[in-house]
Amino acid sequence: MDENTGGLSGLFAPERVAVIGATESEGSIGRAITRNLQDDFAGETVPVNPNYDDVLGLDCYPDVDSVPGELNLAIVVVPPKIAVEAVRQCGEAAVRNVVVITAGFGETGSEGASRERELTEVARQYDLNLVGPNSLGVMSTPSGLNATFGPENALPGSISFMSQSGAFITAVLDWANDEGIGFKDVVSLGNKAVLDETDFVEAWGEDPDTDVILGYLEGVEDGGEFIESARRVTDDTPIVMVKSGRTEAGAQAVSSHTGTLAGSEQAYEAGLEQAGVLRVDNVQELFDFAQILSGQPLPDSDDVAIVTNAGGPGVMTTDAVGDSNLSLASFTDETLESLSEAMPEEANIYNPIDAIGDADIERFEEALDIALADENVGCAVVLSAPTAVIDFDDLARVITDLQAEHGKPVASVLMGGERTESAKEVLREGGIPNYFDPARAVRSLDALSRYREISRREYEDPERFDVDRERAREILERAEERGDNRLGVEAMGLLDAYGIPTPEGTVAADPEEAVAAAQDIEDEVVMKIVSPDILHKSDIGGVKVGVPPEDVYDAFEDLVTRARNYQPDADILGVQVQEMVDLDAGTETIIGMNRDPQFGPLLLFGLGGIFVEILEDTETRVAPVSEREATEMVEGIRSAPLLRGARGRDPADREAIVESLQRLSQLVTDFPAILELDVNPLVAGPDGVQAVDVRLTVDTDEL
Amino acid sequence: MDENTGGLSGLFAPERVAVIGATESEGSIGRAITRNLQDDFAGETVPVNPNYDDVLGLDCYPDVDSVPGELNLAIVVVPPKIAVEAVRQCGEAAVRNVVVITAGFGETGSEGASRERELTEVARQYDLNLVGPNSLGVMSTPSGLNATFGPENALPGSISFMSQSGAFITAVLDWANDEGIGFKDVVSLGNKAVLDETDFVEAWGEDPDTDVILGYLEGVEDGGEFIESARRVTDDTPIVMVKSGRTEAGAQAVSSHTGTLAGSEQAYEAGLEQAGVLRVDNVQELFDFAQILSGQPLPDSDDVAIVTNAGGPGVMTTDAVGDSNLSLASFTDETLESLSEAMPEEANIYNPIDAIGDADIERFEEALDIALADENVGCAVVLSAPTAVIDFDDLARVITDLQAEHGKPVASVLMGGERTESAKEVLREGGIPNYFDPARAVRSLDALSRYREISRREYEDPERFDVDRERAREILERAEERGDNRLGVEAMGLLDAYGIPTPEGTVAADPEEAVAAAQDIEDEVVMKIVSPDILHKSDIGGVKVGVPPEDVYDAFEDLVTRARNYQPDADILGVQVQEMVDLDAGTETIIGMNRDPQFGPLLLFGLGGIFVEILEDTETRVAPVSEREATEMVEGIRSAPLLRGARGRDPADREAIVESLQRLSQLVTDFPAILELDVNPLVAGPDGVQAVDVRLTVDTDEL
Repeated sequence: MDENTGGLSGLFAPERVAVIGATESEGSIGRAITRNLQDDFAGETVPVNPNYDDVLGLDCYPDVDSVPGELNLAIVVVPPKIAVEAVRQCGEAAVRNVVVITAGFGETGSEGASRERELTEVARQYDLNLVGPNSLGVMSTPSGLNATFGPENALPGSISFMSQSGAFITAVLDWANDEGIGFKDVVSLGNKAVLDETDFVEAWGEDPDTDVILGYLEGVEDGGEFIESARRVTDDTPIVMVKSGRTEAGAQAVSSHTGTLAGSEQAYEAGLEQAGVLRVDNVQELFDFAQILSGQPLPDSDDVAIVTNAGGPGVMTTDAVGDSNLSLASFTDETLESLSEAMPEEANIYNPIDAIGDADIERFEEALDIALADENVGCAVVLSAPTAVIDFDDLARVITDLQAEHGKPVASVLMGGERTESAKEVLREGGIPNYFDPARAVRSLDALSRYREISRREYEDPERFDVDRERAREILERAEERGDNRLGVEAMGLLDAYGIPTPEGTVAADPEEAVAAAQDIEDEVVMKIVSPDILHKSDIGGVKVGVPPEDVYDAFEDLVTRARNYQPDADILGVQVQEMVDLDAGTETIIGMNRDPQFGPLLLFGLGGIFVEILEDTETRVAPVSEREATEMVEGIRSAPLLRGARGRDPADREAIVESLQRLSQLVTDFPAILELDVNPLVAGPDGVQAVDVRLTVDTDEL
Repeated sequence: MDENTGGLSGLFAPERVAVIGATESEGSIGRAITRNLQDDFAGETVPVNPNYDDVLGLDCYPDVDSVPGELNLAIVVVPPKIAVEAVRQCGEAAVRNVVVITAGFGETGSEGASRERELTEVARQYDLNLVGPNSLGVMSTPSGLNATFGPENALPGSISFMSQSGAFITAVLDWANDEGIGFKDVVSLGNKAVLDETDFVEAWGEDPDTDVILGYLEGVEDGGEFIESARRVTDDTPIVMVKSGRTEAGAQAVSSHTGTLAGSEQAYEAGLEQAGVLRVDNVQELFDFAQILSGQPLPDSDDVAIVTNAGGPGVMTTDAVGDSNLSLASFTDETLESLSEAMPEEANIYNPIDAIGDADIERFEEALDIALADENVGCAVVLSAPTAVIDFDDLARVITDLQAEHGKPVASVLMGGERTESAKEVLREGGIPNYFDPARAVRSLDALSRYREISRREYEDPERFDVDRERAREILERAEERGDNRLGVEAMGLLDAYGIPTPEGTVAADPEEAVAAAQDIEDEVVMKIVSPDILHKSDIGGVKVGVPPEDVYDAFEDLVTRARNYQPDADILGVQVQEMVDLDAGTETIIGMNRDPQFGPLLLFGLGGIFVEILEDTETRVAPVSEREATEMVEGIRSAPLLRGARGRDPADREAIVESLQRLSQLVTDFPAILELDVNPLVAGPDGVQAVDVRLTVDTDEL
């Protein structure tokens, strides 16, 4: 057995495959799969069906147990009512890999859902690698395995592709065969009752024959696990994905399509980025990126040389470079000298190099050779409009030869219709994509550059600070004892326990305690009513600012009276007596967290007030975050210059904000019971930060 | 002669065409053009060349004057040195339309530039419609006119296409012929010595055979004129354009390609939008939009129905709708009832309609028919993955028939390769574009909707306020007399003359005048040094705020001393004594103008401080602006909610801001001498605005 695809080699490189439910009925899935296997599979196909002695000329067995010898893979196409039993039989017969094509499980309602749970249990019991149910099947080109009922087989290649939509696979194969795009493995994930995207990311990450992993996903089963696996895999193998259901309407469509509740788009955006996935929005980019990543080397630098015989398309390409993370290469003096010798006077030797309309193949060759030899050039786009003096096939050969010679990535834009067809084949042989639209060429090179950065990322472990976890637990447990699941300023101790600076203060249960607390603070204080039943304290006059020591007693009583007037049966814990924080001495920021169903704790950072609420200028990351990630959050907001001291402000202590985010990350990771938490404001002054207020929601069952 | 293309009918629909410089030399442009004309042109081709008696079997004449009978069009391909003379002879011989193919003019340096000026003069003298020089030529399919030296003729169609890059035309035609995309007229603009984009926009706007105008431009010659023409034309005919040189690098590439200085991207963005042009960034959208605009009707509403046999692609389409200005249609109860009768139980009858994988052609037809009949549906996307039960040709016929029956626009996504080819032809016959990528289908429908809005726009004339233009002129003239071209607070009178509210105040020439001015104001005042040599008054302590009446005298002397210390030879005009404006009583905004080389006065609006400087949250429009446009500026900034009273602020008097913008628009339109002007801040309170400071640059030669 081939060890290539890690733990899933039996799935993609089996020697003997059973088709449970193989039939000869015209138009049946059982026949289509048996036929597809028979046509191209290098191993042995074994039909299983108690009603046949042979199927399409192959010996047929009544059940897997009766099949002599070892079976590596079983494809299950029997009706849903007996599919679970068929899978159990696979387990008993030690068939470790099973693809359940049969539909009628979780996607169809409560009966199907309970059937799917049963299926998962059986698979777990026998430790099966189970794909599906409701899957189109799997393919693997090295062994000619086509265990799908689709009409098309895949061309061989080095792209491995998973899809949560079977129809999308059918469509893509039909198109890819036409475009000459090949695949290593293809899997239709179906309902993901057992194997999910993370399993395939891991398997393909270990597969030397997979150069690029592609995915069409409508959801990720376990975000944290996915991030961890993808981070490891993307050191060597790029992952490009469409995650659909991005928009509100799309998420609704996903839920009616697959019956799963989509997590928040914000979480996917952050999570997939943190995982190192190149996320794309459309099918075109999915395959544009796949092709260039599988065919071209990574650029050493982001400086693009453009070589063209047509000024206009050269300008369009330059604009596309301006839109991307790439930049236009500045040629060395040596390059400029060589170009000015090689090119006619009317040519433009500065980047973009315009060899002008009468450029023959030799001039094109010289220009590209000189450009690629320049140490300031990381990659190149070659453009040609159709002219009387250029044969596209010749030019394609020149491009592939020079690309191979210099080892720098090249994208090609031979602009035309029919006349580019054979040239495209030459380019494809050399792993070079060709586009009519220069913008696509540049975006593809940009993807190479982005992947280079991903592959070089060092994922530091999140820092673990020395915190008082027990004290935090006690605070949460006290809330549980009170039956409160919404906490406010009385939970400031949580932040303090985790080392996030808070103003001095305490919750006083009576006026005397309040006076004592104010005496400790030795200054005017802020007083806030503390009640889980009163969320908007300011609205009912439940906050008093700048209370002098002599007024503290009366203020306590007044706050309690107001609260009682507002809500006679409110549960009043007391009054928070807090040191005054000068809001004007710093910048108000917000740090917070909410918990996503797929990705878990999602941290948020932004500047307070209008910046979050009106300009929606926030950064989010899935926790736990490393120092680098927390720093990216702080530096990533549009209004970050304000923290750096723009317009004559004092620069805020950004390191202290970063540390607070890391400590918050640790808190919410340690306590899954915290469902939501907002520190608003976290005032960031020139020397440190202070958390002035906090609100959180707790799931006391999780404690 | 055909009257279709307005004043340019002789250019696109000539009866007799002379080729000046026709030859038989293999590989020559003169031969290629003569051959192209001979092959397909329905009219007569007349070679002109003193060295031949006949060219390619056609009688050849020594010069245009010797040609018997009327000539409508001359194509000039003689060398640059004699090209101007050849054009003059055309003028003498009353050949009104001339295309100069010859290169070696403005694009090549100073000698060429002076030759181009000469060419323009000759053309003006004889009132010639002159295309080029440095043009690839012109095409018009109704008469088979191909007066270019390109290798391809165009297919007939209703798209008229102008391009500032000849190579781009060659590339596009090769590709378009393959895709079955046809054209009415094609023109290579060349150096635009006489006819430019505005002329073709006007001509095609009057041409009933042109359904869509396409352009690839690197610059617009006269922005104001272009806006005016395009506005008129886009009432009936959509204009779709790539304007390249968008990015800094791209603009530089344009300038080395065509030798023209590009205007600012901001001006193009504003100007093309105000003109009603659908601007696109890449070639693909240029033709995607052209095809759907020429083939499909405009939708009555933006509500999209999606009909599919594949859930995944349906979700991708829904996401694309979410990204666009369109929205997912909500079906009526009647529709839902019909669908639930027609569809199997497993189907999804809510939008997107998923007829599921086993949908045959009848089910597809019913679903689409029901959806298009729904009054809540404005347009539709039909998607199909390849399945065993669907023949794409049949489905294409169903789609075209139902589109025609219901008269609502439809985009098609038959997903596949080779197997979609013949279906695409069926769809093309029905004017329906097909895409592999659902996102392109949705963006194309979105373009239809955007054009519907453009076609319905009412362009109000800019309001003309009753202003004191003479007083404004005097202020500018006094600056001229002083030799100042940078004015500051001493020019507040300009704003006052145009009805933009300013605080009470005056420039005092001595301490006594200052004291008198302060007495008039009857309160504390602001005092600012007034000197064209001191731009940053605050930096040198040249501003005093809250000066009580008794301190005004001393303050005057102190300000002048500071200015003298800072710059002993500074020209000091005096001290501005101004009423105090309470900046906290309103929101600081900025209104301003700078003058673009192509589009003229470009107005800017934004909130003051960080909003403009750090968040770059501004809106710009080419002046003069109507009330609607000024309102769009104020409402269009991201931070607009702050003006509407977000977060407990007093709402600002937005009508007063809008009026100030209109008045500023009138001021800068009336006085081209004002090169730049900034009112910063314009404080917008709940009841009106006040311009607190102003700076402007004046070109005194323009007065």
